[in-house]
Amino acid sequence: MPDAFDPTPADRFTFGLWTVGNRGGDPFGLPVRPALTPVQLVAGLAQAGAWGVNLHDNDLVPFGAPAAERDRIVAEFRRAVADHGLCVPMATTNLFSHPVFRDGAFTASDPRVRAFAVQKAMRGIELGVELGAETVVFWGGREGAETDACRDPRDAIRWYRECMNALTHWVRGQGWNLRFALEAKPNEPRGDIYLATTGHMLHFIETLDHPEMCGVNPEVAHETMPGLSFLHAVAQAMECGKLFHVDLNAQRIGKFDQDLRFGSEDLKGAFFLVRMLEGTGGRPAYDGPRHFDAHAYRTEDVDGVWDFARGCMRTYRILAAKARAFDADPEVRAILAANAHADEPLDCASILRAGGANAAARLSALSVDPEAIAARGLRYERLDQLLIEHLMGVRGGVHA
Amino acid sequence: MPDAFDPTPADRFTFGLWTVGNRGGDPFGLPVRPALTPVQLVAGLAQAGAWGVNLHDNDLVPFGAPAAERDRIVAEFRRAVADHGLCVPMATTNLFSHPVFRDGAFTASDPRVRAFAVQKAMRGIELGVELGAETVVFWGGREGAETDACRDPRDAIRWYRECMNALTHWVRGQGWNLRFALEAKPNEPRGDIYLATTGHMLHFIETLDHPEMCGVNPEVAHETMPGLSFLHAVAQAMECGKLFHVDLNAQRIGKFDQDLRFGSEDLKGAFFLVRMLEGTGGRPAYDGPRHFDAHAYRTEDVDGVWDFARGCMRTYRILAAKARAFDADPEVRAILAANAHADEPLDCASILRAGGANAAARLSALSVDPEAIAARGLRYERLDQLLIEHLMGVRGGVHA
Amino acid sequence: MPDAFDPTPADRFTFGLWTVGNRGGDPFGLPVRPALTPVQLVAGLAQAGAWGVNLHDNDLVPFGAPAAERDRIVAEFRRAVADHGLCVPMATTNLFSHPVFRDGAFTASDPRVRAFAVQKAMRGIELGVELGAETVVFWGGREGAETDACRDPRDAIRWYRECMNALTHWVRGQGWNLRFALEAKPNEPRGDIYLATTGHMLHFIETLDHPEMCGVNPEVAHETMPGLSFLHAVAQAMECGKLFHVDLNAQRIGKFDQDLRFGSEDLKGAFFLVRMLEGTGGRPAYDGPRHFDAHAYRTEDVDGVWDFARGCMRTYRILAAKARAFDADPEVRAILAANAHADEPLDCASILRAGGANAAARLSALSVDPEAIAARGLRYERLDQLLIEHLMGVRGGVHA
Amino acid sequence: MPDAFDPTPADRFTFGLWTVGNRGGDPFGLPVRPALTPVQLVAGLAQAGAWGVNLHDNDLVPFGAPAAERDRIVAEFRRAVADHGLCVPMATTNLFSHPVFRDGAFTASDPRVRAFAVQKAMRGIELGVELGAETVVFWGGREGAETDACRDPRDAIRWYRECMNALTHWVRGQGWNLRFALEAKPNEPRGDIYLATTGHMLHFIETLDHPEMCGVNPEVAHETMPGLSFLHAVAQAMECGKLFHVDLNAQRIGKFDQDLRFGSEDLKGAFFLVRMLEGTGGRPAYDGPRHFDAHAYRTEDVDGVWDFARGCMRTYRILAAKARAFDADPEVRAILAANAHADEPLDCASILRAGGANAAARLSALSVDPEAIAARGLRYERLDQLLIEHLMGVRGGVHA
Repeated sequence: MPDAFDPTPADRFTFGLWTVGNRGGDPFGLPVRPALTPVQLVAGLAQAGAWGVNLHDNDLVPFGAPAAERDRIVAEFRRAVADHGLCVPMATTNLFSHPVFRDGAFTASDPRVRAFAVQKAMRGIELGVELGAETVVFWGGREGAETDACRDPRDAIRWYRECMNALTHWVRGQGWNLRFALEAKPNEPRGDIYLATTGHMLHFIETLDHPEMCGVNPEVAHETMPGLSFLHAVAQAMECGKLFHVDLNAQRIGKFDQDLRFGSEDLKGAFFLVRMLEGTGGRPAYDGPRHFDAHAYRTEDVDGVWDFARGCMRTYRILAAKARAFDADPEVRAILAANAHADEPLDCASILRAGGANAAARLSALSVDPEAIAARGLRYERLDQLLIEHLMGVRGGVHA
Repeated sequence: MPDAFDPTPADRFTFGLWTVGNRGGDPFGLPVRPALTPVQLVAGLAQAGAWGVNLHDNDLVPFGAPAAERDRIVAEFRRAVADHGLCVPMATTNLFSHPVFRDGAFTASDPRVRAFAVQKAMRGIELGVELGAETVVFWGGREGAETDACRDPRDAIRWYRECMNALTHWVRGQGWNLRFALEAKPNEPRGDIYLATTGHMLHFIETLDHPEMCGVNPEVAHETMPGLSFLHAVAQAMECGKLFHVDLNAQRIGKFDQDLRFGSEDLKGAFFLVRMLEGTGGRPAYDGPRHFDAHAYRTEDVDGVWDFARGCMRTYRILAAKARAFDADPEVRAILAANAHADEPLDCASILRAGGANAAARLSALSVDPEAIAARGLRYERLDQLLIEHLMGVRGGVHA
Repeated sequence: MPDAFDPTPADRFTFGLWTVGNRGGDPFGLPVRPALTPVQLVAGLAQAGAWGVNLHDNDLVPFGAPAAERDRIVAEFRRAVADHGLCVPMATTNLFSHPVFRDGAFTASDPRVRAFAVQKAMRGIELGVELGAETVVFWGGREGAETDACRDPRDAIRWYRECMNALTHWVRGQGWNLRFALEAKPNEPRGDIYLATTGHMLHFIETLDHPEMCGVNPEVAHETMPGLSFLHAVAQAMECGKLFHVDLNAQRIGKFDQDLRFGSEDLKGAFFLVRMLEGTGGRPAYDGPRHFDAHAYRTEDVDGVWDFARGCMRTYRILAAKARAFDADPEVRAILAANAHADEPLDCASILRAGGANAAARLSALSVDPEAIAARGLRYERLDQLLIEHLMGVRGGVHA
Repeated sequence: MPDAFDPTPADRFTFGLWTVGNRGGDPFGLPVRPALTPVQLVAGLAQAGAWGVNLHDNDLVPFGAPAAERDRIVAEFRRAVADHGLCVPMATTNLFSHPVFRDGAFTASDPRVRAFAVQKAMRGIELGVELGAETVVFWGGREGAETDACRDPRDAIRWYRECMNALTHWVRGQGWNLRFALEAKPNEPRGDIYLATTGHMLHFIETLDHPEMCGVNPEVAHETMPGLSFLHAVAQAMECGKLFHVDLNAQRIGKFDQDLRFGSEDLKGAFFLVRMLEGTGGRPAYDGPRHFDAHAYRTEDVDGVWDFARGCMRTYRILAAKARAFDADPEVRAILAANAHADEPLDCASILRAGGANAAARLSALSVDPEAIAARGLRYERLDQLLIEHLMGVRGGVHA
């Protein structure tokens, strides 16, 4: 029975072919679900309420397929996408499955591997362009090491940059209006992956020849694995205009890459994330697709895959409604306003905002009483409890 | 009995007053060691073989001390430093102990707190300048949140930037030739600290008014707590010329901030770090002080504190000797050379290094055989075992 | 404004003096709140809706206080407890704050420390008996090591056992009807604490002279710090009748010991826990006090402490209501029933339940078709989404 | 060139077929190495210096193989083992790869799956007996959950017990002198695995019908993943006579299951482990096989696999030599002796050791001065530094 939280194409929810197509195999077990074709997956996504479908090159076209077969597959897929009213907003290149990449792709010690990786990425980009993608994601899953004796990580970073630069120049030369979204991950499948977090990646982008066409694709699971705040990573990216894409899923800290259904772990973190993506405090919303990079439990059959997909989208919508209610809650607003001291007579905020050469000296002349300020509590326990009660539906009016 | 691994001032080892002055208290226990005065600490460090001593403002001058007392304390300390032949290469400001900072310093919601933090940092910088420091470290231990309901993290980043900008403008206006070294930490004492890793911090620096005077102060424990590669963080900072300072200690992943004796955990990681700092593969060494930010176990009395300090320095020196031996090992060099394929006929490395508008197209024209490349093993198990045997002294000639 | 989720004494909620009395100091900061007396804390707890108050010996009586002062303090406290209609169901002994315990208490290498720890525990138990406590908790915060060179951990376990045995014999000799609840923690303040988890502790209890009077006191934060399932630990303890007490709070994995407000992290885990404690699937509820071992954020003043305490209790009650609704949900029941295959014709469940010498042989004779079983999905994605929607109040009828 | 650290059969080193036979595939990549037959693996292990080879049923005999094929394969394998002078000391059953086990084996909600798991384990045990194994390992990789909504974990524990009981009764009925070694793991491939650590497993064993025939098989990686002390887990098992087998490898905390070469991470932890296994402080050595459960990096070809295997064994031998030297070091012995206070006049140690009904009262009568004891440092910093210098070969005489 549909309700107010069922997804619609207007939500711009997307899934990768590899997510709903995941067959449930893992390092200790064989696949448990039948292979669905890309066309079947497109049909299923459309029925579930998704807006778009994303892919790696080899999700669609097998590695090494002859050109004619490649073209036939792509044409059939394009038709299916169109027939079901979907789109392909993002494409990416698999630079991690084939044994040639076992020492890295853009950071492999063997320069021929780096060259091959660039070649493959070019073909992947062409495929994306052909399907109408506006964003190209780069996830360097093999860019890392099990033992740092193998190479100087400074070489790795330099080689990574050379490859990214080559690709940005080429895309510009082709006249394509594409954005690159770089995705960090700290480990798995490598012991340590270079440029381990969204923070490291944001800095790396600043060192490229064309930083303006590169941003990040943060993934909930990847920042959460090491226990970092995903919200803070997304905030840093949004604050500087670099959130080009986002990978939504769930993950427990300190574990293998779980890629769980969005919202199924750390519901509070998911709430803060949705609130930021949808726009809070008068700031604009993130304007890209809401992409789910997750898969169904191994316990599921094909029906369970669609349960999984619907669950991702429903939870997102429910949280978006809760975020609006939380932001409108008078008690929440009162606590935040009291702490911001917008009316403090010293005008510290204005001096800092104005900045410039004299800001420090002007601040230095003010008389601030630290003991008086320290005596006042901030009511964050109450604030967080309000949030928890919104989240549980006992406050705020978002419930069944 | 002294041996070849005992420290000398030429090693440029430094300790903070707070490290050898740590009294062994913790959240569950009272201090166990008597308080040593800064002058006593200086004498002890000199005797142990250190080159310099670093400090927070309040390690030396109590919070709120009147100007005359402050000047007396500083003068006495300067004399002691000079008398013992030490120096004060780095100073920092305590923006975390006083209750006024409980919601943050540069990122507190109350703008008066932000102003007070800038004031205190100005006084801390003045103290550093007076003592001859060339580097000012900023560790924002309270810049974070337990619940992200308390503020938008984008505001926090903006406020952080405003404060750092004010301070850089002021320092430049004073005509001081100082460098700022920003230190990241993911959590503790806050639930999540903004700009959680060296990567996030490197990016933040690029957004400041004067990025050229700001670099990073990575700390082993802080990157290790979340299980990130400290080596990769240092490499990224060195690769872009931003390693302005370094905090050496040891830490186990996923635990409270332990600040253990350098090298006492993850000896292999410590080896890679020392090897990079001391220069490897023909690259220049890091040219700043080797600073230990650690403290003795709570089980120790004052004698144990000096055991601790000597241990930090000896292990560093032993590892430096092993790094040289490892780099010179012919079998190591042979494995690395074979994997680099310097003589590959396609010249992939040259094309990538040259970069430019045509690199991708030139690479695309090359014929690389992935299956042939994938068939060859890289001998990293052997390489890493060689390293382990160097580390254990059964290879390489660095032993008793 | 009170509502259906406000706590009442019938809920048997308890807090430690050290929890609401926590002053907000931490390893990097001074206390931020004034000290409240035990009598003030008792009054506050009664007003907030708590049923009982627990304590360490030194929460009430300072270390080394003369007997007369001790007696005066205790008498005053007893009166306050009675006057406010509270009780003292649990007492424990502080064997971690004083420097004498820096190498451990029951596991210290120095046998005089072990003796002193037993003495102090005896006095702590006497205090508990005097106040009417039925449960004595033992948390061995200092029983551990930073370097395992310091002692053989097998000695530590043996010494631990000797001390616990001495105390159980003594309590029995006194004719007291007390239960000991042993609390595990993996680390902090020690690098590694012996008997690191509830599992290790359950086994240790089996090796004591009087296992029947010893059970466990699992704490959410302590099992969560290393990322273990708290629910599974509690389940193992309940399954064997050893859940003698429980410490409720919240914690993020892989961080310092946070002791956050119950339910403020991992709301789903808190739901499962409350559901098990309150009785699910026809099993009896846990019959001990619901003890909160947590404290308010450092950002709070005294008002915020009571916000914190109320929040713990409200969230527990809300989750209890949701657990009942979830267990009654027809779709939930249908999924679980389908997976249990209660009507399977082979009667595998009965053979296994009956057990005995022939069970394996009888099972071996049955013909089970693995492929047929493997073809059917289990609908766990749907089941977990139902749970999430109950939790968020968009299903199940528990909302504002 | 062979040296003093090369392995010999007298060391009783063993490897699983699945370790040296691992082909380097992972969740993100295809296999990179050719499949070697069990007979080839046996030959390689013998040449590398191993003593024995272990296996899962399906490492040797494919799932569902007809009896005749099974017998042919087993006979060929037995011949190869004998021809190469190896033995098969341990066997185990794969209860995790096939989709039928996706919800668990002994803990699956479907009782037919539990029955099938018992059947398969019986066949696995028969295979082990046929090959001469004395130990049967049980690793319940699928015994867990992604969502605890799926079943009550108390049911899971009960079902696990029923299956283990059935198997112990059956083995006894067959007259086989086998020992069961149960292996814990906290997560992966399941979100949470029941009986998550060696501690939980030791307790579970005490609840079985035949605890005397069941012990544990702790694995370095499995206790290390959540950051628990592996040494303490092994110590607890040895202290109660339950270390029936051991899985040696290396792992970084908080990551996916890496199964790295023994000693390649946490060299200090590996040192303590080898020291305990080989006998320290006059205690007997562990008397079972030294089993390596690890595999070569994905970067390796078949030669690299044998590099990996030799590295495991060499590092073990080097550490064993260092352990002996450390235990003999006079300064080490002096520190430990001083801390043990064997001559303390109060005789606290004796009273505790004697135990009994009066121990607490006797201890209570002693006068211990906590301040005096607390004033003395324990020299653990020095002790640990001595260890580190032994480990690095600059002390103790174990070097090239």
